[in-house]
Amino acid sequence: MLSQKYLDMLSGKSVIRELSEYAVARGKEIGYENVFDYTLGNPSVPVPDSYNDSLIRLIGSKSAMDLHGYSQSLGIREVREAVANSLKKRFGVDYTLNHIFMTSGAAGAIAHAIRLVTVPGDEVITFAPYFPEYNPYVNHTGAVLKIVPPNTEDFQINFDAFESMINEKTMAVLINTPNNPSGIVYSTKTIKRLAEVLTQKSKQYGHIIYLISDEPYREIVFEGVDAPYVAKFYDATITCYSFSKSLSVPGDRIGYVAINPACPDAETMIVMCGQISRGIGHNCPSAIIQWAVSENLDVTADLSVYEKNMNILYDALTDLGFRVVKPGGTFYIFPKALEDDAVAFCNKGKEYDFIGVPANSFGCPGYFRLAYCIETEKVIRSVEALKRFVKEKY
Amino acid sequence: MLSQKYLDMLSGKSVIRELSEYAVARGKEIGYENVFDYTLGNPSVPVPDSYNDSLIRLIGSKSAMDLHGYSQSLGIREVREAVANSLKKRFGVDYTLNHIFMTSGAAGAIAHAIRLVTVPGDEVITFAPYFPEYNPYVNHTGAVLKIVPPNTEDFQINFDAFESMINEKTMAVLINTPNNPSGIVYSTKTIKRLAEVLTQKSKQYGHIIYLISDEPYREIVFEGVDAPYVAKFYDATITCYSFSKSLSVPGDRIGYVAINPACPDAETMIVMCGQISRGIGHNCPSAIIQWAVSENLDVTADLSVYEKNMNILYDALTDLGFRVVKPGGTFYIFPKALEDDAVAFCNKGKEYDFIGVPANSFGCPGYFRLAYCIETEKVIRSVEALKRFVKEKY
Repeated sequence: MLSQKYLDMLSGKSVIRELSEYAVARGKEIGYENVFDYTLGNPSVPVPDSYNDSLIRLIGSKSAMDLHGYSQSLGIREVREAVANSLKKRFGVDYTLNHIFMTSGAAGAIAHAIRLVTVPGDEVITFAPYFPEYNPYVNHTGAVLKIVPPNTEDFQINFDAFESMINEKTMAVLINTPNNPSGIVYSTKTIKRLAEVLTQKSKQYGHIIYLISDEPYREIVFEGVDAPYVAKFYDATITCYSFSKSLSVPGDRIGYVAINPACPDAETMIVMCGQISRGIGHNCPSAIIQWAVSENLDVTADLSVYEKNMNILYDALTDLGFRVVKPGGTFYIFPKALEDDAVAFCNKGKEYDFIGVPANSFGCPGYFRLAYCIETEKVIRSVEALKRFVKEKY
Repeated sequence: MLSQKYLDMLSGKSVIRELSEYAVARGKEIGYENVFDYTLGNPSVPVPDSYNDSLIRLIGSKSAMDLHGYSQSLGIREVREAVANSLKKRFGVDYTLNHIFMTSGAAGAIAHAIRLVTVPGDEVITFAPYFPEYNPYVNHTGAVLKIVPPNTEDFQINFDAFESMINEKTMAVLINTPNNPSGIVYSTKTIKRLAEVLTQKSKQYGHIIYLISDEPYREIVFEGVDAPYVAKFYDATITCYSFSKSLSVPGDRIGYVAINPACPDAETMIVMCGQISRGIGHNCPSAIIQWAVSENLDVTADLSVYEKNMNILYDALTDLGFRVVKPGGTFYIFPKALEDDAVAFCNKGKEYDFIGVPANSFGCPGYFRLAYCIETEKVIRSVEALKRFVKEKY
């Protein structure tokens, strides 16, 4: 019989996707350039030339076996070594290839991380506002995702609520900084306090509580923002990375798990990832893509447009009286709606072809997300639409 | 705490991998050209030029967004359509893009297929000899893999044993034809009878028993061999395909699920695959690889070497008195060892640097597998070693 679990999911369509489809359909009516579509977190800047150059050079120079043959089950050794060296150089953490497992993006990395440190029934804690895909990522392993309510003051961690939710079943805490959807970067103070709580609670419950740090936006941090490297502050950190945003290659499906060398059994955990893959049909990311990113570890796409867009939107929103915490990174901004019901607010915005996503599914009702990975010229025009929207409706 | 399930798996090292590592280590002592390494099923013929040409052309012509942007969650529409059209043209089954879900290889395809049609506790039946990875592929979903004992007469299906093992918990039957490790192709007669049994048992138990057909070796079929397209014979067929062997691109991680349009709810099942992906972190295969295979659907690598190698080995083995069923496809041959204990037999072979894999883990003790995806010149030299081995030891 067909699995009821997955049949049931078909009715629960993603709000983001529905609004994105609306925006595209609306674009067919009035021209997509006239729809201020802030729905999707799809990088808008092109891949760096050096990445495509790498692909072409690899095809011309590598043997068929190196390029198209099976890669080792933990990822290509040279690639893992290059990733480890790059992380070590940048962040001063002593990774070696034995702490790196190549995955097809952050989703693949999290799929392994959760299975590494939980069994069905265990609890994983995350913090609102949070990426809604964390629900299937965690709950489909059999573990249970618990959501700490948001600290809407500054979107750092709500520690009182967090500490009260930790119990003997808590095996991992999943954070995302810079954060989707808030755009906030957890400060050094926040990460230090988080590490202290985890250390103390690990001792109290007699088992390690792992910190799973989901970092696809690590390279998109704005000027002057304090953006600590999480693993430096807590030994039992499992870093989940994706190159999707830094290199603008979400379709290439490439990322990794990096386990802090100071984490007990770190090297064993990497080998365990290879076993987890066998059950989820994941195997390795494409060999050619592994090689290409290994040649582009210290490169990013031109990410400056995101900060420019953020500043335009932040200024316009604050001028218009929105309550909004200034993003420290990513390509999201997360204002409070001008009425309690953010769904109603976003629906009114549609009349002005200003399409944001209400944040109910992000665990933060009353707020909405704008994904400003679009052209700056369009952001500027959208401000005019937003002004009319606010003036006429509020 | 670290998952005991995956920790336990670390001690159970794969026999294939152990022997392969032995062969490589031995190669460092005496020169790898002198080791008759028949351990790994790693395609030895190069990728067709047209495939690399496609990659280079795509990089030069597609927009960054088309090439490196997110592909739709079921796979790129044009690619799915091209796959459907190719299957329709070749096999006369009316697939459309709505029956195709792109995956990263057959492992990814099976990971989705099992989760589609089972819940934990359900049973999936397969037939010995079988690919040992079916154990984690099935058991890690929570379903239970049941093994029908081999029909060593001709390695077609042992129907008496099979029928006695079907019960109300049986939700799927997983077949692999052409078969790893036997090299046998299920005949039209076998597939027809299998379809009859499944139809009758589906009726008896009041639910569909799905046929999951794992077909990575579909394009490697030898002259004159009857190789029916499985889905033509049974409506509820879920075909799992990989391009790894046909295009010699196992490192590219690309394949698909194709659901017979005649299967009830076929299109819904494809959409469900997109939901399953969210929980196993699979997402799509790399967009650029999807595009490249879509331009090479009617192409294969030069697979003729496999038949040549098979004939040399088959003749030599039969001359030496081995009991061996002639393979109809793949790059495997599966003789009975010259003593009951195939492990002891293979260990003796090592003295002659003739490295085969004993078939205990394939569910067929007393037999051994030779993966003859190696150079023909080496196959010829290996026959001399085999002759000495048999003469001196038996």
